[in-house]
Amino acid sequence: MKPLKIAICGLGTVGAGTFHLLRKNRDLVNRRAGCNLEISCVGARRDNPDCDLEGIRVERDVMAVVDSDVDVVVELMGGTTTARELVLAAMAKGKHVVTANKALIAEHGDELMAVARLNKVHLAFEAAVAGGIPIISALRDGLAANNIEWLAGIINGTGNFILTEMRDKGRAFADVLAEAQSLGYAEADPTFDIEGIDAAHKLAILASLVFNTPLSIEAIYIEGITGLQTVDITHAEQFGYRIKHLAVARRRGTGVELRVHPTLIPESALIAEVDGVMNAIAVQGDAVGPTLFYGAGAGAGPTASAVVADIIAIARDNSVGSGSASATLVDDA
Amino acid sequence: MKPLKIAICGLGTVGAGTFHLLRKNRDLVNRRAGCNLEISCVGARRDNPDCDLEGIRVERDVMAVVDSDVDVVVELMGGTTTARELVLAAMAKGKHVVTANKALIAEHGDELMAVARLNKVHLAFEAAVAGGIPIISALRDGLAANNIEWLAGIINGTGNFILTEMRDKGRAFADVLAEAQSLGYAEADPTFDIEGIDAAHKLAILASLVFNTPLSIEAIYIEGITGLQTVDITHAEQFGYRIKHLAVARRRGTGVELRVHPTLIPESALIAEVDGVMNAIAVQGDAVGPTLFYGAGAGAGPTASAVVADIIAIARDNSVGSGSASATLVDDA
Repeated sequence: MKPLKIAICGLGTVGAGTFHLLRKNRDLVNRRAGCNLEISCVGARRDNPDCDLEGIRVERDVMAVVDSDVDVVVELMGGTTTARELVLAAMAKGKHVVTANKALIAEHGDELMAVARLNKVHLAFEAAVAGGIPIISALRDGLAANNIEWLAGIINGTGNFILTEMRDKGRAFADVLAEAQSLGYAEADPTFDIEGIDAAHKLAILASLVFNTPLSIEAIYIEGITGLQTVDITHAEQFGYRIKHLAVARRRGTGVELRVHPTLIPESALIAEVDGVMNAIAVQGDAVGPTLFYGAGAGAGPTASAVVADIIAIARDNSVGSGSASATLVDDA
Repeated sequence: MKPLKIAICGLGTVGAGTFHLLRKNRDLVNRRAGCNLEISCVGARRDNPDCDLEGIRVERDVMAVVDSDVDVVVELMGGTTTARELVLAAMAKGKHVVTANKALIAEHGDELMAVARLNKVHLAFEAAVAGGIPIISALRDGLAANNIEWLAGIINGTGNFILTEMRDKGRAFADVLAEAQSLGYAEADPTFDIEGIDAAHKLAILASLVFNTPLSIEAIYIEGITGLQTVDITHAEQFGYRIKHLAVARRRGTGVELRVHPTLIPESALIAEVDGVMNAIAVQGDAVGPTLFYGAGAGAGPTASAVVADIIAIARDNSVGSGSASATLVDDA
């Protein structure tokens, strides 16, 4: 079987994590993929001392990657400008794309998906929502027989960490935020996390899968957690509730309701127990009833787990036929 | 696109549930499958008044189903004798098979899988473990990049219902069991549920997927919940633990440890909160870390959700190439 040649673009936390996972679990991954997955090219402005690039073509200008003979371009750079150009150029050259970039998919997903279909390539983004939790695959495949009535997720680990610390230790919001930043959970500019933008990006992606809504965060009601005080959490607890920052998509008549905001959850609900940086998505299907998917929503290992799962799926599909790849990764319901 | 013709064998709870789900969500399911899923044949000793069989070929002798022109035989009869013969005969005729029959897969899975490979057909059994939870798909696809270190599941709803009632209401084992039987959760002969055989069947299937262990329950340590008294549960609670009937598979050196028994779980663990008839499987992967998959483990709707998801996957694969179906549904690690 011909190897599947991979280009990894970006050697930051997730890029290096993907690089290492493909090496560490090489035998197992190759066996499950049905062919050898070969990192033959890396696009990165500078080396990462943790990644041994010997024998690998290295491009400092990431756009040059699309001129290599790789089968799959893995976009792990972040940002939406160069990332979009790279993904478009790669697909135009018939290369499959795997990305962990939620902002890219949330903002340009409809355009990118159309180009993927046109070029008959895969555009896979399991890692873009809830890190290592295979929620895209669950919605697209495992729960495919269901009319999804609603889903509600804790899909921003930083926000959940802050709320958990405020409840468990009675700490103030600003204090916990500073710690989250020093621990590397939150960005130097934490606006995306604490104002709900990051969660809204992910919600837009989930809703497009489940309800076929256009990929746009414009229509989402977004409220962050910056207005919460420890006393709110204490009061909620006195009435038997936890406060969680939820992203909710719910079918309403002929429309869909999309919202991100702090929510009172009865403490008997399983999702109320999801603490710290962990993520979880509760999904209610008309046949399956209530389900919940739990795991790490960020970090090198969990995100790489999802990225490599996408690469394996592409390899399996490639090995089935010749040129039979389809781009219908978003449910066209 | 040519329709995918389906035979449903068995019109009991799950058979009727599958029949109704394919009708109720017809448009959505067909769109996601990429072709029309058509129930063209039913094999059942007697009609089910809830299922309108007009226009459908009905066979009273279920073995006659394999002589029809269906593409997929869905085995929902239960038992392991006729079910095994039916599945073997169907695959010999080049038909894909979907089954919800955990005993069949646990006892004859290795043989059936070999025949599926030989005949290049799918043998799919998502519904055989944990009902509507897409755990087979999660292990095979979503977590495919991981070396799974261990998994631990509450995978028998009846047993979990009994333990939950004993804890919440201080009721005696025999009392709750009688209620479970009257509610239809437990069989008239509840041995399989309360002695851990049912959980062992499912554990064997999960372990074969993850660790490539032979499908056999002989090697599993099995202890039921019949020896538990309310006082055990109360004492556990005083020390901050819940008692759950867990099925555990864990890598140990070059071997694998497989066991089913009542287990003390710290009440802070998410799986300790899984109550009533619900199922959950915690999976620890080397890249993804801790994950948990939660949902209904039995019942018409949840089981049909998994059965129809398998049919949709076969339809998608069929539509990709011609005759390109592969039988590597069990990870050949």
